Amino acid sequence: MSAEDLRAPSLGECSVTSPLPPETLWVEDGARVLVSTDPGELASGSFERAGPRRRIFFEPRAMRVGIVTCGGMCPGINNVVRALVLELHHKYGVREVLGFRFGFEGLDPETDTQPMGLGPSEVRSIHKAGGSILGLSRGAHDPAGMADTLVRRRIDALFAIGGDGTLRGARALHEEIARRGARIAIIGVPKTIDNDVPFVDKTFGFDTAVELACLAIDAAHTEATGVRNGVGIVRLMGREAGFIAAAATLASAEANFCLIPEAPFDLYGERGLLAAIEQRLAARGHAVVVVAEGCSAHLARADRDASGNPSYSSAEADVGPRLRDTIAAYLREAGVGATIKYIDPSYMIRSVPASATDAILCGRLARDAVHAAMAGKTGILVGRWHRAFTHVPLGLVVKERRRVGPDLWQQVLDTTGQPPLR
Amino acid sequence: MSAEDLRAPSLGECSVTSPLPPETLWVEDGARVLVSTDPGELASGSFERAGPRRRIFFEPRAMRVGIVTCGGMCPGINNVVRALVLELHHKYGVREVLGFRFGFEGLDPETDTQPMGLGPSEVRSIHKAGGSILGLSRGAHDPAGMADTLVRRRIDALFAIGGDGTLRGARALHEEIARRGARIAIIGVPKTIDNDVPFVDKTFGFDTAVELACLAIDAAHTEATGVRNGVGIVRLMGREAGFIAAAATLASAEANFCLIPEAPFDLYGERGLLAAIEQRLAARGHAVVVVAEGCSAHLARADRDASGNPSYSSAEADVGPRLRDTIAAYLREAGVGATIKYIDPSYMIRSVPASATDAILCGRLARDAVHAAMAGKTGILVGRWHRAFTHVPLGLVVKERRRVGPDLWQQVLDTTGQPPLR
Amino acid sequence: MSAEDLRAPSLGECSVTSPLPPETLWVEDGARVLVSTDPGELASGSFERAGPRRRIFFEPRAMRVGIVTCGGMCPGINNVVRALVLELHHKYGVREVLGFRFGFEGLDPETDTQPMGLGPSEVRSIHKAGGSILGLSRGAHDPAGMADTLVRRRIDALFAIGGDGTLRGARALHEEIARRGARIAIIGVPKTIDNDVPFVDKTFGFDTAVELACLAIDAAHTEATGVRNGVGIVRLMGREAGFIAAAATLASAEANFCLIPEAPFDLYGERGLLAAIEQRLAARGHAVVVVAEGCSAHLARADRDASGNPSYSSAEADVGPRLRDTIAAYLREAGVGATIKYIDPSYMIRSVPASATDAILCGRLARDAVHAAMAGKTGILVGRWHRAFTHVPLGLVVKERRRVGPDLWQQVLDTTGQPPLR
Amino acid sequence: MSAEDLRAPSLGECSVTSPLPPETLWVEDGARVLVSTDPGELASGSFERAGPRRRIFFEPRAMRVGIVTCGGMCPGINNVVRALVLELHHKYGVREVLGFRFGFEGLDPETDTQPMGLGPSEVRSIHKAGGSILGLSRGAHDPAGMADTLVRRRIDALFAIGGDGTLRGARALHEEIARRGARIAIIGVPKTIDNDVPFVDKTFGFDTAVELACLAIDAAHTEATGVRNGVGIVRLMGREAGFIAAAATLASAEANFCLIPEAPFDLYGERGLLAAIEQRLAARGHAVVVVAEGCSAHLARADRDASGNPSYSSAEADVGPRLRDTIAAYLREAGVGATIKYIDPSYMIRSVPASATDAILCGRLARDAVHAAMAGKTGILVGRWHRAFTHVPLGLVVKERRRVGPDLWQQVLDTTGQPPLR
Repeated sequence: MSAEDLRAPSLGECSVTSPLPPETLWVEDGARVLVSTDPGELASGSFERAGPRRRIFFEPRAMRVGIVTCGGMCPGINNVVRALVLELHHKYGVREVLGFRFGFEGLDPETDTQPMGLGPSEVRSIHKAGGSILGLSRGAHDPAGMADTLVRRRIDALFAIGGDGTLRGARALHEEIARRGARIAIIGVPKTIDNDVPFVDKTFGFDTAVELACLAIDAAHTEATGVRNGVGIVRLMGREAGFIAAAATLASAEANFCLIPEAPFDLYGERGLLAAIEQRLAARGHAVVVVAEGCSAHLARADRDASGNPSYSSAEADVGPRLRDTIAAYLREAGVGATIKYIDPSYMIRSVPASATDAILCGRLARDAVHAAMAGKTGILVGRWHRAFTHVPLGLVVKERRRVGPDLWQQVLDTTGQPPLR
Repeated sequence: MSAEDLRAPSLGECSVTSPLPPETLWVEDGARVLVSTDPGELASGSFERAGPRRRIFFEPRAMRVGIVTCGGMCPGINNVVRALVLELHHKYGVREVLGFRFGFEGLDPETDTQPMGLGPSEVRSIHKAGGSILGLSRGAHDPAGMADTLVRRRIDALFAIGGDGTLRGARALHEEIARRGARIAIIGVPKTIDNDVPFVDKTFGFDTAVELACLAIDAAHTEATGVRNGVGIVRLMGREAGFIAAAATLASAEANFCLIPEAPFDLYGERGLLAAIEQRLAARGHAVVVVAEGCSAHLARADRDASGNPSYSSAEADVGPRLRDTIAAYLREAGVGATIKYIDPSYMIRSVPASATDAILCGRLARDAVHAAMAGKTGILVGRWHRAFTHVPLGLVVKERRRVGPDLWQQVLDTTGQPPLR
Repeated sequence: MSAEDLRAPSLGECSVTSPLPPETLWVEDGARVLVSTDPGELASGSFERAGPRRRIFFEPRAMRVGIVTCGGMCPGINNVVRALVLELHHKYGVREVLGFRFGFEGLDPETDTQPMGLGPSEVRSIHKAGGSILGLSRGAHDPAGMADTLVRRRIDALFAIGGDGTLRGARALHEEIARRGARIAIIGVPKTIDNDVPFVDKTFGFDTAVELACLAIDAAHTEATGVRNGVGIVRLMGREAGFIAAAATLASAEANFCLIPEAPFDLYGERGLLAAIEQRLAARGHAVVVVAEGCSAHLARADRDASGNPSYSSAEADVGPRLRDTIAAYLREAGVGATIKYIDPSYMIRSVPASATDAILCGRLARDAVHAAMAGKTGILVGRWHRAFTHVPLGLVVKERRRVGPDLWQQVLDTTGQPPLR
Repeated sequence: MSAEDLRAPSLGECSVTSPLPPETLWVEDGARVLVSTDPGELASGSFERAGPRRRIFFEPRAMRVGIVTCGGMCPGINNVVRALVLELHHKYGVREVLGFRFGFEGLDPETDTQPMGLGPSEVRSIHKAGGSILGLSRGAHDPAGMADTLVRRRIDALFAIGGDGTLRGARALHEEIARRGARIAIIGVPKTIDNDVPFVDKTFGFDTAVELACLAIDAAHTEATGVRNGVGIVRLMGREAGFIAAAATLASAEANFCLIPEAPFDLYGERGLLAAIEQRLAARGHAVVVVAEGCSAHLARADRDASGNPSYSSAEADVGPRLRDTIAAYLREAGVGATIKYIDPSYMIRSVPASATDAILCGRLARDAVHAAMAGKTGILVGRWHRAFTHVPLGLVVKERRRVGPDLWQQVLDTTGQPPLR
């Protein structure tokens, strides 16, 4: 990455004195966080450090601020909304905070959704419940229309809480606003249950989801070990990246096979998954398999390898039932009497309130997002990196998704003891 | 029921003095518990009250005892096994307790499964984990073969922990043994996640399962209320009886429709489920539907009502996905843009350790089962009835399953506010 | 008890047709529930069965209803308040429901606390949080003043949710109102974390508290077994009755000694607690002791037995630290190197949301309380008895508290294996 | 720190080829992790990166390995023990692993405690329970004696899991061994519920403890907000460092005052805590105070400031009850009728099984500890730093404890909104 890629855009000079108390632990604008902690990779540069600035861009008492939540449910959204509102209100004295409803749809002038006013009393206890009080939706909306709404409602700063699609949308909106020369700060707060935002070491809600996912693996393990030749299969979220499956496998330490989109595998053949399961049943009498939803392409391909034709009509078939049926058919043909139990916790892992760890992360991100907006930063997200908090230009994060890397995958292999499967 | 139906079989006269301490709260053999608490129904008779007897049938120090666990997982099995072993060992001084492995299969001479010895050290912490240390299996085995095993291993009393099928098997075994004139006590401990054993007001594990099922309903509610026109659908266990669905609906108090096998419903038509969901979306913007797995026949029938033909090829299709697809198709045709989220917690609700309430129940049932066997009772189960503990002849409980009655169903209707749906 | 004692008072003839739908499962006014399920105790009579009546006393649409919550926190208060409001509003069409604030204080004309209006939107999600949205307080207030408030605010029915003191207050208020010839229904909903209301087989919140109390015992067990000669001591609520201590002991199955107010014990001497702990340490290397708060008098007495003088200046000293210090001193003198860990979960067990089991109970009690008030019942509480629901005259329940009986205590002794301790 | 301080000691040249599979993600011996992520602080140097080496020091199949767990309970100890054993056994082929019992006491030749053999079957399910299967103890033992035991038992590598005292002991043992020229690797795995080990960004068990601590704060909040002028006080562990109190305050977001050893405070005077509580009660009607156990010195000093004399006889008095009594006395004198609820979750927060996040951390630390020992590293601990894993010389970590820094404290102040209190 070039230094240019890492530079956080700004609305202009900061000429207002921050209303925060003088004993605040100010962050100097030149403060940076290295991209890499490897002394041999200093050339990869550094991010701007997040935090409160002594001089800010906006006059807080005159500001109008918007908040929007997009995409799927994730533990902690309400914690972020609450902390944004409380920091804006109590610390900076911002008087008007609007919550746009149901994602970017609430910014689209073609819908007539009214935003809701947000103050301390509206958000008092919302962090104790899952979901989003603002509502969510998926899908892109025309940046020009969204910019019109912001201008019409005289919004000075918009906090967009969401994942890949949201951050793309926020970036398009930021560019549209920049094109118009408007002075509206667009600040992203990364939210993805899949934990796959680049240059963000952990997104909020992820730890909570993993905690819940472990319940499913533990249930599968109990089922599998309670019968002769029990096979427990757990399907977990993770369309492009297998972070949830990998982390839950590590945490539960009861899975014997973990399948993620990043690691292709064979089904058939001596080194394939099916033979490996059969061997494990012979040796240990049970097997627990964790599979990320994004493995359907691998599964379809692996399935085709066997016969030349896919055994299912479509690669779109959900990976969980498909894997279950494939394993069942194989073991039946192999003459292994097995009992297969399939568990899909689905939305149960993401609709719960945030764990303590995630709640702490949410509060910090929200406060740093407010500091960033006040200082006139725009076109960035606020992220955690090496346990510090940073401003990451949106341009950097929309290029690709983060994937499970070799280091984490090595941990998974060490924990499951699974063979290479290819 | 006749008095004969209610009489607990016995192996013979009790001529041994119980080794329990003299300050024990003895139960007299004539002690009874009314079948009905309604003063107008005294004619329905009474059950024998469970508990320790001053004089017992067996000489405990010479006894060999067997334990077998059958059927599906259920929270609390290990609590029962542990309490059986501890009561036998510490209180009565029984020295040999064998755990037969993997259900009745472990009693079948055609399999070569060795039983495991069970003493205090083997069971010390097993109650803190779900599952069954003995393993489970489904399916009937020849009573003659099982009786042979008991005789060959010189078992004096067998505790069979299981549900409908197990209790039928236990009864057949009891009859085979009675036919041979053998003096082996067969005592059932009712175990069914579905809570559908007649003359038992609550089976262990049920409360725990309901607690977990509520997490699924709460997740569905969070998902449904977090988007425009969200529909959350939760499938819960309950093949013949809808107790889990009903109780979880009452406990969560977030479901708007509850479908159970006991209450047929229409899908189509003005008063059908689909129109009711559409109306609720129009009025409130979200809907949560709980459906018991045993509704598939209703659903198939209801689906056929619409067009004369089933819209699915088979009534065997799993009720959950089928209901989801039917609702989706209906709303799409009705032009209602809705987001549907389907949740099936499946085995997650039954593979967990027992809650406190269930753990208490397990301990009590196990101790009363031991007292019953010691007193030479046989061909009975130990159950809870009106919060007392009773001996219920197995002949009574295998005739039919308990169903959700009008009283509980009324509570469900009051809680969901759902219309009649027919 | 005489039949008179068991008769539920009534405001007068029921001349209004219930607005509930005709398919409601009506309860006939003569329906009864036996006090005893023992066929030999039919003479003890029966309670009136709770539930919806076809003909009611009040015209619901013209009614004003009050709710008050008193005493200490208890899981489920908000569930009861919510279900009262929803049943009154949706089922009977009552339009005005007032929530008096901070217990009976909110009915005292000498305080100027305004009640809050309660409708479906005020109570929507309150059942997911612990505590009481109305607030609580302890202490009696003048019945005449409270009656004045009810008259002045034209309240037709008051639901008083609370324990021993509250039910006494409700009874005094009921008598004051009867004296005036006013037609105001006073309905109690029993609430006590201690579960000690007579003729009520379980009060709401109790199961939840026991579940939490088990965490403390499990922690004590982990601490005690993780060191040489570890002694874990857990203090639990229960001033007059040891139900929480007894039930948590049964559920956890890890406690070796359970001390409750109902069972006096010696500290010193061969058969005393201290020698028993010493013996257990010698034999097993650890000991877990559960003590109910109400044991302080026993402890003071037992302590005096040793030397003739109390070793503490006052019997009022909290039982937990006192027991800890006594055990520590004894073991020190006995030359036993032990590590003692003391745990008091205190309010943590009662400030949480209701468990599923308790939530179900709360909903049922609230709906039956509404049915009772509508039918003009007064001076009663709605309770669960033998798993049925009943109207219990307040006069019956204020005479004494329920205590742990010999049957439950026997279970505790069986579980802990503790000797008689005297 | 000098480069010398950061250098990890080594037993000698690595001449054995690792038995790990060739596709392992090897770590080169020169790989480093920067001490600071601030580009302006590169001079502070770097730590050696942990992980598997291609060439190792020991011949694994000939090795004997010891494990010892010391200090207080902490969630995750069993996870570490299990992962050590499984990695040693399955990955490196080590055949003899001994678990020394009850901390360093188990290494002291003056006690006759026999170690236990540890293999896969001994550790299979231990990670699902809290505590330590090896047992713990506190206190130092003579390094010479411990070294004698290691030599006598022919131990090649010892893993010492523990906190401040343990790491000091491990360092003394390492120095004793080095003095003797013995080739025994001493590897620390940092364990402290207080999270105060320097150069370790988070110790295992901390997240779990914070999760539990939040339950106490939430209970206090429920109690405080459920009455007029409710004050909830929660005492949390943290003798020298307030990390648990700070993190639980951030996570719960319900505390209004957080007191930690790092931040002295006044009790009396206009800016003191007591006046601040009084003001909050006047403004908001409730207050929640979190206090770390290590605040007793502050409290004693603050208390003395008022009158010149301490109001308690000793600064040793436990901070919780003392603070409770001081607040009660102050409010009583100020004529504020308040209800004060005191909660001390004590050992409940540390005796539970590890959360998912902590379980992941435990597994990683254990595996990296094994890799370190195999590579002949010694006198180090394995820690997490900037989310990487490092070898930190024991000499560095025993000099001082980590404290809550200004950055974390700023977050606490932002969350509670508490004034400076001095």
